[in-house]
Order: sequence, then structure tokens, then C-alpha cells
Amino acid sequence: MTLQVTVWNENVHEQEEPEVAERYPDGIHGAVADALAERGFETRTATLQDPEHGLTAEVLDETDVLVWWSHCANGEVSDEVADRVVDAVHEGMGFVPLHSGKNSKPFKRLMGTTCNIKYRHGGETERVWVADPGHPIADGLPESFEIPSTEMYGEPYDIPEPDRTVFISWFEGGEVFRSGVCYRRGRGRIFAFRPGHEEYPILYQEEVQQVIANAVEWAAPTEGSEAVWGEVEPAESPE
Amino acid sequence: MTLQVTVWNENVHEQEEPEVAERYPDGIHGAVADALAERGFETRTATLQDPEHGLTAEVLDETDVLVWWSHCANGEVSDEVADRVVDAVHEGMGFVPLHSGKNSKPFKRLMGTTCNIKYRHGGETERVWVADPGHPIADGLPESFEIPSTEMYGEPYDIPEPDRTVFISWFEGGEVFRSGVCYRRGRGRIFAFRPGHEEYPILYQEEVQQVIANAVEWAAPTEGSEAVWGEVEPAESPE
Amino acid sequence: MTLQVTVWNENVHEQEEPEVAERYPDGIHGAVADALAERGFETRTATLQDPEHGLTAEVLDETDVLVWWSHCANGEVSDEVADRVVDAVHEGMGFVPLHSGKNSKPFKRLMGTTCNIKYRHGGETERVWVADPGHPIADGLPESFEIPSTEMYGEPYDIPEPDRTVFISWFEGGEVFRSGVCYRRGRGRIFAFRPGHEEYPILYQEEVQQVIANAVEWAAPTEGSEAVWGEVEPAESPE
Amino acid sequence: MTLQVTVWNENVHEQEEPEVAERYPDGIHGAVADALAERGFETRTATLQDPEHGLTAEVLDETDVLVWWSHCANGEVSDEVADRVVDAVHEGMGFVPLHSGKNSKPFKRLMGTTCNIKYRHGGETERVWVADPGHPIADGLPESFEIPSTEMYGEPYDIPEPDRTVFISWFEGGEVFRSGVCYRRGRGRIFAFRPGHEEYPILYQEEVQQVIANAVEWAAPTEGSEAVWGEVEPAESPE
Repeated sequence: MTLQVTVWNENVHEQEEPEVAERYPDGIHGAVADALAERGFETRTATLQDPEHGLTAEVLDETDVLVWWSHCANGEVSDEVADRVVDAVHEGMGFVPLHSGKNSKPFKRLMGTTCNIKYRHGGETERVWVADPGHPIADGLPESFEIPSTEMYGEPYDIPEPDRTVFISWFEGGEVFRSGVCYRRGRGRIFAFRPGHEEYPILYQEEVQQVIANAVEWAAPTEGSEAVWGEVEPAESPE
Repeated sequence: MTLQVTVWNENVHEQEEPEVAERYPDGIHGAVADALAERGFETRTATLQDPEHGLTAEVLDETDVLVWWSHCANGEVSDEVADRVVDAVHEGMGFVPLHSGKNSKPFKRLMGTTCNIKYRHGGETERVWVADPGHPIADGLPESFEIPSTEMYGEPYDIPEPDRTVFISWFEGGEVFRSGVCYRRGRGRIFAFRPGHEEYPILYQEEVQQVIANAVEWAAPTEGSEAVWGEVEPAESPE
Repeated sequence: MTLQVTVWNENVHEQEEPEVAERYPDGIHGAVADALAERGFETRTATLQDPEHGLTAEVLDETDVLVWWSHCANGEVSDEVADRVVDAVHEGMGFVPLHSGKNSKPFKRLMGTTCNIKYRHGGETERVWVADPGHPIADGLPESFEIPSTEMYGEPYDIPEPDRTVFISWFEGGEVFRSGVCYRRGRGRIFAFRPGHEEYPILYQEEVQQVIANAVEWAAPTEGSEAVWGEVEPAESPE
Repeated sequence: MTLQVTVWNENVHEQEEPEVAERYPDGIHGAVADALAERGFETRTATLQDPEHGLTAEVLDETDVLVWWSHCANGEVSDEVADRVVDAVHEGMGFVPLHSGKNSKPFKRLMGTTCNIKYRHGGETERVWVADPGHPIADGLPESFEIPSTEMYGEPYDIPEPDRTVFISWFEGGEVFRSGVCYRRGRGRIFAFRPGHEEYPILYQEEVQQVIANAVEWAAPTEGSEAVWGEVEPAESPE
């Protein structure tokens, strides 16, 4: 069955910075959604400016995996919508925050940590290494790939110890970063992927698109078992 | 150096239910603080009814480990105080929620999950098994110990996969539960311990007190390394 | 593509104990292979008595997932074949040891621990609880299922902390056990499942068969990325 | 109580390469043991050439933590001594393999993986970043430290997902590596630390010595609980 993907973007840089608008004429959400549609997913997009940020209960109900890009407007996402996303993840929806989506309310609420990092603008080389070559999110990738110009993120990265660390990045300026990390919260799968800075055409890069597509496949909901919560009778009956 | 422990209790059952007041004349917080003081910790107590619930910035600054009991009044803890506790954990304070402290705002915010369970009142036997006999929180314990009468908690327990599962409980009615689970969030150590229901004198039980004391020792802050966050110059200087 | 499953059995109880032979006329391997074939997997069987225990390099090359039952003859498996299985797991083959297959050479070599437990014969009730209702190995299961008569295994279970704990068992006699645990070693996925004692018709039980089928599906090899080992030139060329 | 540390070294490069002998006139084991003695540990040394490699049952009984350096002679360690080390770790002895000690028989048997890496000789800069600033093995360290000249180790590093990743290294040539990783096997704590190549005076470096000392402190045995293995009577008696 075709997976239903919603690509969410705060869509602010595209409106305020002409260079970003020129680079991503359909928005970062448009570029990512196109890349996923080409790879066979059914996609829709939603942005901060939409009513309820485009993430109504109906939209989330129909979403298998939510890909999320955000940066400067993380604080403008309503608490209600953030909690709705968190609840949907608990129920099984996959969640794939890109770049500074790691600072988004849903990701931070799911992690329980600050998600703090160090960073540097200016455009330097990043080499993304596969640390877990057996992981499906690495399917079909070379052992590493280069992002020619990007913003740097550096360790320490204040996250819970990941379930799996799929990618670790090397930066020209001397830093390292766990660029692809996996978690489970409730029934939902989460993959946070570092690349995707808006000042460079990174989201058009073949390897980056492949990672996002692999992550969507990996984060798709599974059936799982029944679960009963609340007050119950004894499982074993007294003889 | 003597560890500084703050024992926090919502202190509601003690005021509303004569049997609980009789069982715990100094409150659950008093019983736990006494047990820890006898074991060499420097203790203080704080309750929901205190200004800022007794958890001012000053108190938390002076607290190495916060032991937390709560149940029916989890919703009455202010968001501000809950976030202050979470921040203190991130900075290194240990956090030991007891019993339905697993439903407290700080614990749920640190976990990022619902922490849901199933439960049953009525008073049945619980046998607490050590699943990780090499863990310091199990120091000095027998391989299992019995709680003669308690409320049941049953799996599934909606928590992130624990860093270590120290205890797993067996219940007379047929259920099982991960009764002692360890986490790290930021610099802080967290140990959630299931026993401690207010309807029985569980917190006077020797093994239960020893687990709490061991957990306090284990959760104490460590020095760690420097950490630099935010915008930085390159670590490597261009030649 | 249809998954290729090899079901391996030491096949000793079947030859030495008439009751077991009567219970499993095609051997435990036959019963498990039939159950998997009915669920759409392509299956073959192999036993201790076959040349190279039936696990030649060719057989392992054609095996996506190896299901393994062993008990009294764990010591008779040759070191060479045990290492061949371990190597195949490192290369991506799934491995699903059942019952005391947890004492097999391949499993112990993959774990690096003793895998010790406590146990008791006699036939008592086991209730297998799903601890991770979002896990694909729990697909389609009720929240728990009962095995009417079995050998007991009890904690502590000397294994590395699992990547995921899918099942925890309750026993009539008062013990608990992590009955379904997941690991990764190299590119390979491992799921150790406790039920399957030869003295009872457990491997004919619907829920048990479904867990094994789910585990085979989950443990199937994935493509992953390229990996380069050994001496290399610098990834970054000097300017 | 003063911790008893045994520093083991294959002691082969020191005998075969004059430059190494000159750099480490008391052997790598001597340099490491001196550094630990200065920091208050009680130390002894043992080498491959000693009877039973100096690791008799008596020596291991008296050892709280075993620090291990090996490289070209990993294959010459007897299986019996390797298993004796593994057994001692299971019983609680700490184990701290340095550098290519990651290829030693005990470490590989404890991990259950190949521990493969990529590497490059030639002397390039390594920057060791603290990824887990709250970890006691990072106590007192700056956020990163530089090793001016070393052999490179690069990802992927074929190990089980670590319990904690304390250090990640950046290399001048473009690679990254998880340089400090923590595990538990049985009751024992394991910390594998990458630095320590024999061609450079790395083991005299202050930060490297401090990491090893911190690791010894962290890996020390703890009391833990009783554990009962084998056949048992029911924990619960029939009524």
C-alpha cells in the first residue's frame, strides 16, 4: 500500500529571503515532496501559515509519516498542534525532522532533552559517514557522501542516547555530529536527519533525498499488538 | 561529600484519608526522608502545598537528587515548577520518581511518552525480581523480594526502551511490570521505581528503602566535561 | 520476494524420547517449517545429524533467516559450523533461536555473555505479555497469551541489555522472564524467543507460530550501504 | 578502597622496534601503569611473554579493572587466557581495551561482532570530542582535545550499538570514529578507547591519561545483588 507522507515546512525563509525563494521556488516542502513523490510515495504539504498549521486531526489521521522542516519559527508553532503531532507519533505515525527541525516543539517533547548543539554559518564541507551500514535508512548509499557547502552542527548534541546512530558527520572546520539518529516513542518511529540548511541546494542532492525516502519507508507505522490500558481484572482467575 | 536529597510529596492522601495519615504520620515524604537520613544522606522535604511546591530555584540548586512521590494531584503541579525540575535534571540533578510519580509532569516530559500502564487495586502480592544483578541500584539485595499487598501495575508500560531494566515485578493476578528502569537526560540520571502505593506500609519495607537509597547514590551528579553550545569558531584553524 | 528460511533442529529428543517423537512426528524442525510454509515462507530444514549439521556455506548463502532449536546437544555443534553461522549473521542473515537455543554456541558468541537463567520442569502456566505493542514482532497478537504447560525460565537472564524487549513472561510459580528480545550484530538481526519446550505441544500453538513468523519477517536482511574496511586513502584530499 | 588495576600489554613493538622502545622505555604497560599509579590506583603489569601471559586466575581475582593494550600479537593470546578474561568480566571485573585492543580476543568475544574498522598510517591530527558531557569518563575534560599525530581509525566500526558513546573523533583526512564506547556484559563494565598508537607518545598525553583513569574508576566492580542460576523451586508456594 502506498505510504501517505505529509511534508511540513515553516515556509518562512522562502518568504523573507529572495535567495531562498529562488533556490526553492516551491518551498523546501515542495522540493522534498517532489523528491518523495518521484520515489513512489503519496505526498501532501502543509505549512505554518495554514489554518492549524495544516496539521488538523484529519490530516494527521491520514498521514503515515510526517517529514518536518523548521528553523527560525520553531517558537511560532502552537502548543496544541505540537501536542497533536506528539500524540500521533505515540499512536504510530512516523516523524522525520530535518535540520533544525531538531529544535521543533514536537521533537523536543518526544526527546525530553534540550537538543542543544554548537553551530557555525559560512559554508563548509560536510562528509556524512554511514556508521550503521546494515540499517535500512542507509539502503543503497555509498559509505559516505559529501555536502559541499553547509552550516556546521557540532557535538555535544543533547539528545537521549539514540536507539541506532546511522550517520556521523565530519566537518571541514574540525567538528563531528551524529547526523542521523533513530528513536521509538510509543508506537512511533523517529529519525532526525541533520542536513538540509536553507542557504544551499542540499535538499536537491540525490543522497539526501534517498536518505529521506529510506527514512520514510523505515518510519512507516506497523500493526503491532493490542494494548489495554487502565483498570483491569486479574489475568489469572482465582481457582 | 554527603549527598543532598530533597524528598517531594504531593501530600494529599495523607490529608484526605485517615488511614493514610495513620500509616504515614509524617507523610510519605517524612517516611522516605527518615529512611534516607538513617542511611547517611542529608535530607529535606517539600510538598505540593508549599510556595512554589517547595521547589524553588534555590532548593533545586542545593539538591543532588530529587525523590518524588505523587499520584492523584499530578495535574496540580504547576508547569513552571515542572519545567524547573526538568531543567535541573538536564543540568545533572538525579531524579527518582516513586510509584505513580511515573505520571508526574517532570517524568513524562523527560520521557516523551504517555507512561501509560494498566492497574488494579485490591491488595495482591508483588514479587520484585532483580533482572540486572550487576547494577549498583541492586546492591545488597536478594535475588527477589516480596511486597505482601499492593496495587498492581501491568505491562505494557509506555516508556522509551530503558537504558537498563533493573527490576521486573511478578503479580499474583497474572501481570508483569518493569519496576525499576534507568535513563539519562542531559547530564541527569533518572530511576523510576514502581513500589510505594499509599494504601500499604510499603515505604517502610527494608528492601524498598534500600533500593531508594541505592538509587539516590547512583543518580548523584557527576562532574563530566565542559560543554560549549551555540555559535563557534572552527576548531581547526585554516593553515 | 519470498523469504528463504532454514529451520535447524538438533533433533535429539525426537530420537531418544518416544513421547517427543509422538508429539512431533516430523521433528520440531518439521513442525516449525510447516508453520512457516503455511504463512508463505520458502522453508528447508537441517539437523545436527546432517553432514556439517546441514549448515554448509551454500545453505547459509541461500538462507535469509535461520530459525534454531537446540537443547541437550548444544555442545555437539562443531565450532566451525557455529562460527559459520555467526559470520553469516554478521553479513546480514537473520537468526531466531527458540527456547534453549539461547544456550547455543552461535547465540552465546553473538551475545558475549553466559545467557544463564534459572529454570524448573514440571509443567506450569506461562503468560506471555507484549511489552512493546508497537513492535512488528507483536503484529496481530492479543495483549498476552497463555501457554498452558511449560518449563519455567526465570530472571536474571544474563544477556546484554536488549535493543528492544518485546515480550515478558509471567510464570505460575512466581518468576518472570524477558521472553522475546531483539539485537543487531553486524548487519544481522537476532530475536531470541523463549517458548518451545519439547515436552509440550507449544510449537503448534497459533500465537507461538505467529511470533516466529513475525520474527522471520522482521529479521530478514536489508540492503544497507556499502562498507569499506581496512587500509584507506584520505577521504579529503590535501589542497 | 584503593582500586587494583592490572595493565596488560602484548609488549612486542617495544622489543622489535627501537623507536618504540625509545619512546616507551618501560613499555606501553609501564607508561600506563605509572600514569595510573600517580592518580592513586594500585597497579601491576603483565605481558604476553609472562607465563599464562601474566593473567593467572590469581591475578584476575585480585584485579578490579584490567587495562589492555594489544596490536600485532592479538592472535598469540591463548584461547584459555582470553576466556579467563571474559569470565572475569562476566563476574564483574572492569575491562578497558586501548587502541587496537579492540581486536583482542577478549573484546571481540564480549562484543560478538568483528570490530572491523578502516585505518590509515602516516600521522595525522585527531580531535577527540566529548559527545556525552555528563558521563563520568569525561570528568574534568575540555569539550575536545587534540592528538597531534596518530594512526586514523574510521567508521563504520562494527560493534554493537554502544550503551553510551562518550567520545567521537574527527580526523584530518576526513574520517570520524566513535572513540570511546561503553558496554556491560554480565556484571562487568567495558570501555573501549581508541587513542594509544605506539608510533607516537600518545599515552603520555595528559588528557589520554585522564580518560584512562576516569575509565578505571567507572569500570570498577560494584556489589550488585545475589543471583541464583539453575534449577529452582517455585518462588511462590502453592496454597
